[in-house]
Amino acid sequence: MTRFRLTVEFDGGPFMGWQRQKHGPSVQQAIEDAVEAITGEAAVLHAAGRTDAGVHALAMSAHVEIAKPIAPFRLAEGLNAKLRRLPVAILSAEIVPDDWHARFSCIGRRYVYRIVNRRAPLTLDTGRAWQVAVPLDAEAMDDAAQRLVGLHDFTTFRSVQCQAESPVKTLDRLDVVRRGEIIEIHAAARSFLHHQVRSMVGCLQLVGRGKWTPDDLQDALEARDRASLGFNAPPDGLYFVEALY
Amino acid sequence: MTRFRLTVEFDGGPFMGWQRQKHGPSVQQAIEDAVEAITGEAAVLHAAGRTDAGVHALAMSAHVEIAKPIAPFRLAEGLNAKLRRLPVAILSAEIVPDDWHARFSCIGRRYVYRIVNRRAPLTLDTGRAWQVAVPLDAEAMDDAAQRLVGLHDFTTFRSVQCQAESPVKTLDRLDVVRRGEIIEIHAAARSFLHHQVRSMVGCLQLVGRGKWTPDDLQDALEARDRASLGFNAPPDGLYFVEALY
Repeated sequence: MTRFRLTVEFDGGPFMGWQRQKHGPSVQQAIEDAVEAITGEAAVLHAAGRTDAGVHALAMSAHVEIAKPIAPFRLAEGLNAKLRRLPVAILSAEIVPDDWHARFSCIGRRYVYRIVNRRAPLTLDTGRAWQVAVPLDAEAMDDAAQRLVGLHDFTTFRSVQCQAESPVKTLDRLDVVRRGEIIEIHAAARSFLHHQVRSMVGCLQLVGRGKWTPDDLQDALEARDRASLGFNAPPDGLYFVEALY
Repeated sequence: MTRFRLTVEFDGGPFMGWQRQKHGPSVQQAIEDAVEAITGEAAVLHAAGRTDAGVHALAMSAHVEIAKPIAPFRLAEGLNAKLRRLPVAILSAEIVPDDWHARFSCIGRRYVYRIVNRRAPLTLDTGRAWQVAVPLDAEAMDDAAQRLVGLHDFTTFRSVQCQAESPVKTLDRLDVVRRGEIIEIHAAARSFLHHQVRSMVGCLQLVGRGKWTPDDLQDALEARDRASLGFNAPPDGLYFVEALY
């Protein structure tokens, strides 16, 4: 068996999420099916992150084991040919050691969340950003975001379905940057809880519109209670940027 | 009658183009229908540029005359409500003098063309860029592009359906810039011929892959013959950026 690392870009719009689901299409299933079509082998794909329905990836890392001899470039080309009708692309494939694991070897994950802050509805960015019509103060959002950086119990910002053993995580970076009508929120950590980025963004948006003070955000964090969450941002604006090893 | 200037963003994908067509949906018709739904008046929209099927706009300028008293903000909000199911958005509406004309008063037009230069198919950029799998030399493209800047007979780069009186135009700017795998071609002129930007981009792409030299591009220009055109780039990557007055 040879272990391949795949770097994957996808539009999360048509999928139930990364993870294989009984009740709808998933990115994992699409790629596993493509591997099986090429190799004749039932494949199991492991990924650095299991993104939700509607969440996108610019460079998700995953790995898969294949018995049939195949060069990495041929594998990527073959998978892209099989995936052509779906918004999933293999950006690269490479052989990795047998103990390299897309999920467990990963030491850092980066996300970006895109807000389009304007009155007019989205056209080219439909499904690819969160439109917020009320003017947002991105500087206030960035200031408040720093309250969340560091080692905290993020229970407030965690989905009730989250399967992580502990809600205590270290958030390495949470930066809010405005470029014209676009506000980007950059998040980096060793790992994130389920819905953590969307929940943090949803609350920062309350700060940006003046409904919450930075102290309100800190109170929500310290409450360690999902009921204290102000808002969970929609998946459309969230992109898995990269996994670090 | 009050004359309103509308600034319009749209995804050209689902349309036959800007201009009203008998055989399919157009951006012009979508907005004219929305104006009529709000005002009860048959409306005629004039635009700075008549984009082709699949071509997008970040800020097209247009104007329309309306008899019914309505504030510009209410007009924009009403149109966006009516247009909500289509990828067309009114970014702003303002009252302009009766002699202001979106097409004839326009003194400059800017386009950008987006190439994604990579082996992997597009996912998030499907329909929004031209994927070129062969590596392109963007610097060589930029050098060659300067041969096209200035006053020339652009017959080679003009669609046979072009209705302009003269093929002689002044191209003010044609810059090729690479940012990672994205190559952007920025074009500016008082006005363009039909298919001019796509035809110039198609030929620059031949330079970028080493099939054409800058002299080949110049020979094509000087031939003043549509048959000398190397390649017409697809509409997907083309965006009308703005109209200047």
